[in-house]
Amino acid sequence: MIKTVYFDNNAVVILDQSQLPEKVVYERCETPEKVADAIRLLKVRGAPLIGVTAAFGLAMAVNTYQGAANQLERYFKDTSKLLASTRPTAVNLFWALERMERVFNQFFKINPDNIGVLLVQEAEKMYQEDNKINEAIGEQGQKLIKSGSQIMTICNAGALATCGYGTALGVIRSAAKKNYVHRVWACETRPVLQGARLTVWELMQDKIPVTLITDNMAGYVMGMGKINAVIAGADRIAANGDTANKIGTYSLAVLARYHNIPFYIAAPLSTIDRSLALGEEIPIEERDQDEVRQFRGNYLTVADADVFNPAFDVTPNELISGIITEKGVIEKPFAEGIKLIFTERNRQDEISS
Amino acid sequence: MIKTVYFDNNAVVILDQSQLPEKVVYERCETPEKVADAIRLLKVRGAPLIGVTAAFGLAMAVNTYQGAANQLERYFKDTSKLLASTRPTAVNLFWALERMERVFNQFFKINPDNIGVLLVQEAEKMYQEDNKINEAIGEQGQKLIKSGSQIMTICNAGALATCGYGTALGVIRSAAKKNYVHRVWACETRPVLQGARLTVWELMQDKIPVTLITDNMAGYVMGMGKINAVIAGADRIAANGDTANKIGTYSLAVLARYHNIPFYIAAPLSTIDRSLALGEEIPIEERDQDEVRQFRGNYLTVADADVFNPAFDVTPNELISGIITEKGVIEKPFAEGIKLIFTERNRQDEISS
Repeated sequence: MIKTVYFDNNAVVILDQSQLPEKVVYERCETPEKVADAIRLLKVRGAPLIGVTAAFGLAMAVNTYQGAANQLERYFKDTSKLLASTRPTAVNLFWALERMERVFNQFFKINPDNIGVLLVQEAEKMYQEDNKINEAIGEQGQKLIKSGSQIMTICNAGALATCGYGTALGVIRSAAKKNYVHRVWACETRPVLQGARLTVWELMQDKIPVTLITDNMAGYVMGMGKINAVIAGADRIAANGDTANKIGTYSLAVLARYHNIPFYIAAPLSTIDRSLALGEEIPIEERDQDEVRQFRGNYLTVADADVFNPAFDVTPNELISGIITEKGVIEKPFAEGIKLIFTERNRQDEISS
Repeated sequence: MIKTVYFDNNAVVILDQSQLPEKVVYERCETPEKVADAIRLLKVRGAPLIGVTAAFGLAMAVNTYQGAANQLERYFKDTSKLLASTRPTAVNLFWALERMERVFNQFFKINPDNIGVLLVQEAEKMYQEDNKINEAIGEQGQKLIKSGSQIMTICNAGALATCGYGTALGVIRSAAKKNYVHRVWACETRPVLQGARLTVWELMQDKIPVTLITDNMAGYVMGMGKINAVIAGADRIAANGDTANKIGTYSLAVLARYHNIPFYIAAPLSTIDRSLALGEEIPIEERDQDEVRQFRGNYLTVADADVFNPAFDVTPNELISGIITEKGVIEKPFAEGIKLIFTERNRQDEISS
């Protein structure tokens, strides 16, 4: 299993995904600023992985804190704010930082000497949980995949986007274990090419058959009758099921609808932001225009061309066939399904605690 | 006006579009093989321009022929076959070569000494005609564009795809002259990036406001309510209006339909292939996988990744709002409209001849 992030001797060690698939390089981030930069520069990406990485960064900051004891709480909050400021769309980032804050608030006053260690443990726990959750998503999702399926996906919602198994690619992985996956069609996912660079690499490592296409070929391939399902990850899901994910996901959903192909979202419950009623409330990150203008320093257009570069779009719930979570597949109407699954989860949490 | 091709001292001089927008380089092709290579390698591209360039290449071949007189007819046919073999989808290529063959057959026996000059003249005539036809397409098409319009386009159906004015971009150019174009949204058009490299450059030269997006942003931009019309060129139109054009056109047409945005094709009548009843009969070129895998020699995926690389797709007639030609806008039902416009054209040709 690919190690995407780990904590080592008070450093957050990340796999620098911006260099994949050319080079497999790990980078030691020994300050929260370095962790923030790694997230901002897409060295670490993927909603679940961003969350866990930020949690490690925050834990490391507290664990290595050398300042006055009465300033630690402030330092914790400032560092959390720094890490939260890196990217606006994926809610897992805020979810992870809030979870760390709850641990901090619970133990800081009663056990100040051990607070750093406790936070590192909490981040490690999130890492382990993420893996289990992804495997559960895979288990739930594979039931939707028929034998001989060809599945289209976008971006990388795989091991590389998580702590090692994947959401959308976790479903594909679980279905592939049953030999149900005939082929994956990976959209290259411009501008940052997570599909071409990461999904293709990851699936080839696992020997799951994968064919790379440019994003604008998706409609043509669907029209050829080749695709049995589209599965994408998510960066934030509103309470009604509207889903923000990598730019291009919405276009795929429209195309899937036109071709009567089921379109699934695969994501952990931590991606659902019940504080937002509608997808239109999800903030959409716009990134540097040069992401579109350049590839590895070479211009692929006029150097001062005007560019629009939204990193995400929102797929309205009506285009989604089901949301695959670790607790089951949420079906329409999503608003009710989401409410129900959280009620059940809370009940289970109460029973198990 | 940009010169895309010209005949000079028995050379076909082409603007090497594969180097745009970085460098404006003209290449002298002094053999038909060089012309064929230029077309095959996309140094010259765009359905109308390919046709005229091949015609110049054939004329040059005959005009510089040094062999035995009784072998010239064979040489003409072989050279025509060579040029026809370069690319399979754009019908303008075959249309232009057939037109040259008619001139050859008409004059070869009665005026063998001048046949080369006559063919050069015919190619020059096609070049001039293409410009007039494009301007007429622009004039017809601009009537469909409302004041303040934002127009999405794909690939480059511009001056660079033709002999200097453009089909889809010809319509935009004519509408821009009336100040009706608020903004053009250019899809970058992977894998060869004709949108990013050519359309952006061409429109910036003409000071027509243009914003570049990656292909997978099209749905999002349409969903924002920004687009008033989509206009694309065509490589071949079947008798029923089904239209082959650059890969991604079909996806745009589906997206336009979902967002209730009119979707127009702009093309000369020479792009209509009445010998094919349906779009599914149009041969679709598949190109080298490295077009997708690499940009300027840098791999953007795993070096041996499996790739599917169709260069075109076919948009079914039901997704097309109108086909803008030099003789007017063909409306639904297209089969009848196409039949009618050719009947009228034949009548006019008879009157004028």
